[in-house]
Amino acid sequence: MNRDVLCNQIGHVFTQSQLLQRALTHRSYSAEHNERLEFLGDSILNCVVAKYLYGIYPDLPEGDLSRLRSNLVNQQTLFILAQQLRLGELLLLGEGERKSAGFRRPSILADTMEALFGAVFIDAGFAAAEQVVLRLYVPFIAQADAQTLGKDFKTLLQEYLQGKRLALPKYIVIATQGEAHAQLFKVECQIEQLKLFTCGEGSSRRTAEQVAAEAAYRKIESQS
Amino acid sequence: MNRDVLCNQIGHVFTQSQLLQRALTHRSYSAEHNERLEFLGDSILNCVVAKYLYGIYPDLPEGDLSRLRSNLVNQQTLFILAQQLRLGELLLLGEGERKSAGFRRPSILADTMEALFGAVFIDAGFAAAEQVVLRLYVPFIAQADAQTLGKDFKTLLQEYLQGKRLALPKYIVIATQGEAHAQLFKVECQIEQLKLFTCGEGSSRRTAEQVAAEAAYRKIESQS
Repeated sequence: MNRDVLCNQIGHVFTQSQLLQRALTHRSYSAEHNERLEFLGDSILNCVVAKYLYGIYPDLPEGDLSRLRSNLVNQQTLFILAQQLRLGELLLLGEGERKSAGFRRPSILADTMEALFGAVFIDAGFAAAEQVVLRLYVPFIAQADAQTLGKDFKTLLQEYLQGKRLALPKYIVIATQGEAHAQLFKVECQIEQLKLFTCGEGSSRRTAEQVAAEAAYRKIESQS
Repeated sequence: MNRDVLCNQIGHVFTQSQLLQRALTHRSYSAEHNERLEFLGDSILNCVVAKYLYGIYPDLPEGDLSRLRSNLVNQQTLFILAQQLRLGELLLLGEGERKSAGFRRPSILADTMEALFGAVFIDAGFAAAEQVVLRLYVPFIAQADAQTLGKDFKTLLQEYLQGKRLALPKYIVIATQGEAHAQLFKVECQIEQLKLFTCGEGSSRRTAEQVAAEAAYRKIESQS
């Protein structure tokens, strides 16, 4: 994994490579860290997703647009994206964070993801940042369609199983990592009667359960 | 006051005049109201101001940028702008709202202001919306700078009270909700000598205190 591969994946080659360097730098590594870019990236991400949702859902009321966006623009989705892009391998971390596996921590990875959007915005403007954000986000947006609007995956899964008169899933915490303020939870969703077992990770037990439930729901969906 | 004057003031002539019509339409007037545009306008406003602050304050940490922006992008500033532009005279309101002087209500005017930014964004893209937002906001940004930069509301409040030789406020946690990783704190700011008691909520005790301090500071400001 190197920076060229990353640029290739996000579809943007930096004119100012120091911006990419900065986006990948955690505050524990250098004073030239990515927090200002993260501030910017958060706002461009919100704006791009707002514009896109406005366009593809011409009839959706403001409250639903807002809910849909906050289901998309959150730490969990950013964390998943960062993992897909293997950002952790490129992250510049101070020694302490490196030793405590900071490169796997959801909050650090999510923040870096935002910083990356901010860096593209500064490097090449709104349209370029929009392109990068949508390239990564559209698959998530497509999933979070009208059906799931306002309904979480634990609820969807439960409704499906009840419809089939099957027992409800069990959610078991199978691992926790990290310190109290920055824990990573790993949860297994167990649906015995379907012999379906999926895992989810997240910065809270609840989020990890949702991710595991989503994985189960998607699996069922793809098989039906 | 008419729409041409408004366009002249904001520096944007609409290609799609129905967008301006919509931005000026309150939900009490028609189903074709401005709430979706407001959703969009809020995000473009945040993004433009973030980019501008990032550019003019190259050394300001993320926390200060964020604080500075939230002091700018709030209902109060939007309300002032709306009054300057005499938006109330162009607002399309249902009869009930018209009779209860809705055209003067801060929330309605602030929302319409945001909808106007959203309408420009859809009409002509990011650069056009950026131009309109900055044309209106730069004078405020110049002001907000010296006043609030680097000083949070707890500090501002404390300085005010010390200046009046009053006792410092007490901050009391009056409620906490949620699990350990996702708590919501409710804090009361108590200024006994002024018989002033305000509340704030936040995901940390510190944030909740700041929100409560801000509420107290604003109340004092509005009364003086």
